[in-house]
Amino acid sequence: MKETFAIGIDVGGTNTKFGVVNKKGQILVQDRIKTNEKENVEGFIEDLAEKLQPMIDQYGGKENFVGIGMGAPNANYYKGTIEYAANLKWKGIIPMAEILEKKFGIVARLTNDANAAAVGEMKYGAAKNMKDFITITLGTGVGSGIIIDGKIVLGHNGFAGELGHVIVRYNGRLHKGTGLKGSLESYASASGLRDTAIELLQRNPETPSLLRNYSIDELTSETVFLCAKQGDKLANNIFEFTGKILGEALATFVLFSAPEAIVLFGGLTKAGDLIMKPTRQAMEANLLQVFKNQVKILYSDLKEADAAILGASALVW
Amino acid sequence: MKETFAIGIDVGGTNTKFGVVNKKGQILVQDRIKTNEKENVEGFIEDLAEKLQPMIDQYGGKENFVGIGMGAPNANYYKGTIEYAANLKWKGIIPMAEILEKKFGIVARLTNDANAAAVGEMKYGAAKNMKDFITITLGTGVGSGIIIDGKIVLGHNGFAGELGHVIVRYNGRLHKGTGLKGSLESYASASGLRDTAIELLQRNPETPSLLRNYSIDELTSETVFLCAKQGDKLANNIFEFTGKILGEALATFVLFSAPEAIVLFGGLTKAGDLIMKPTRQAMEANLLQVFKNQVKILYSDLKEADAAILGASALVW
Repeated sequence: MKETFAIGIDVGGTNTKFGVVNKKGQILVQDRIKTNEKENVEGFIEDLAEKLQPMIDQYGGKENFVGIGMGAPNANYYKGTIEYAANLKWKGIIPMAEILEKKFGIVARLTNDANAAAVGEMKYGAAKNMKDFITITLGTGVGSGIIIDGKIVLGHNGFAGELGHVIVRYNGRLHKGTGLKGSLESYASASGLRDTAIELLQRNPETPSLLRNYSIDELTSETVFLCAKQGDKLANNIFEFTGKILGEALATFVLFSAPEAIVLFGGLTKAGDLIMKPTRQAMEANLLQVFKNQVKILYSDLKEADAAILGASALVW
Repeated sequence: MKETFAIGIDVGGTNTKFGVVNKKGQILVQDRIKTNEKENVEGFIEDLAEKLQPMIDQYGGKENFVGIGMGAPNANYYKGTIEYAANLKWKGIIPMAEILEKKFGIVARLTNDANAAAVGEMKYGAAKNMKDFITITLGTGVGSGIIIDGKIVLGHNGFAGELGHVIVRYNGRLHKGTGLKGSLESYASASGLRDTAIELLQRNPETPSLLRNYSIDELTSETVFLCAKQGDKLANNIFEFTGKILGEALATFVLFSAPEAIVLFGGLTKAGDLIMKPTRQAMEANLLQVFKNQVKILYSDLKEADAAILGASALVW
């Protein structure tokens, strides 16, 4: 039998990564483009085709491909659309599956980028052989993919699993993208951590900190990490606070679906125990007896881009 | 073919209700006993058998029964056990399915009482033909049953769907049963509403209220309801506060599983719009755009006992 392939595309707020994947889950070739370089979706598709079409040709043309799977923010599996994505330039409702099919002549399926990553973890990553788990991305935003009984939770309208937007502090920090106050994403994302840093520095003007050596523009989750590693108290408090909020939210998610594990990935996980220790502690402190010391918190063991490309490709096998 | 029957048993904190159900979902005969009348589970089973055995005999004996389904707090579907139920006298882990099978000679299945009610709603009630919904019981406690893609969510350990224990106010009101602070149950249950009443009366000693005509012992969710209906401002505020917290929590649940509807039942729903209006308002205010005005909030249209008995019986068909 002739070997067949799938295309996996991961649309992120900054980069779009894509590759050709075989049935064993090996990425045979991959590349990336800037997601928001062009003003409209037609320009994006042109940029994509310029690099993707040669890959398709290299593996024998569209006849050898079972489909294109795409993970994207606010993507709807049922409708094949991307709807009102806060971090993308394309406004309104984009019929992406239709656009891809027209451009490449290959069947296309969409899902939420975090859902795609969750499928990647289940098929090839840290959650291999698990049937109940949740993935949480701690990146520019906070995304989530929920797997229950071996399947992605899509919900009635296809938008289930938006755990980054769960309110964790009523009347808390304003999220400019959504207008919600006190959502998880406004604390446990890279920019949320940065906001916490600015708040703590301003609220404690007397407290010495290495962070004061940086201008506001230089303050990022990375600089906070560097200072915390050097033992800076305030920088450490920033991770403690972030981890505490994240852990409290994880406890809520555990009470919902009783997962075997929560798989974390994204930039903030690079801080390791600095964020993981307070996260785990706060999660356990907020759990009912029957859940205590039962739920693993794992790091993804796939490269971030790989998980999303693999997961997206798994949509079409 | 000979007609067969199932037994549905609903174990509540106060009463245990049970009945014989046919395949169409008709309860042919039902009765109840006090759950906590006897010190141990053996006594409970004796009380149950005294009334249930004659029903079994009336419908032709155990050969005519496909099984016993039981909904109970902290029941584990996978293990057939009731584990550390805060509102029951029986301590530790009770192998209830085994006990029932030994006593009645009929196969037994257990699930969480709220899960059983959810199945009842799906098969025979307000959520008929829905595949994605959540039921929330607002009774002595706050229970929940989650249906995703037509199936109860059980989770890795069988204890999924404990939404009453989700933390809604960090460092909030202490829940004596669980030791958790600020859980939904400590606000949105009948006793939570009573606690809110006591707090508001004490915190506003100058505010006149019909509620001051009652002794602390007479203050219940019912008396607060009666006063609110007569236009008492403070009593109305109690429902507003309770509904607001409930609605905020519902928004979190919607972001998780994107249900078509949330089905409410239990004592507090009798307050109607007094609680429903602030609940709906707070839920909508805390939702992402893609969920706004999409999720129905419904009342159960089964009698409460019926939903639980029917749902429990549905476990064994």
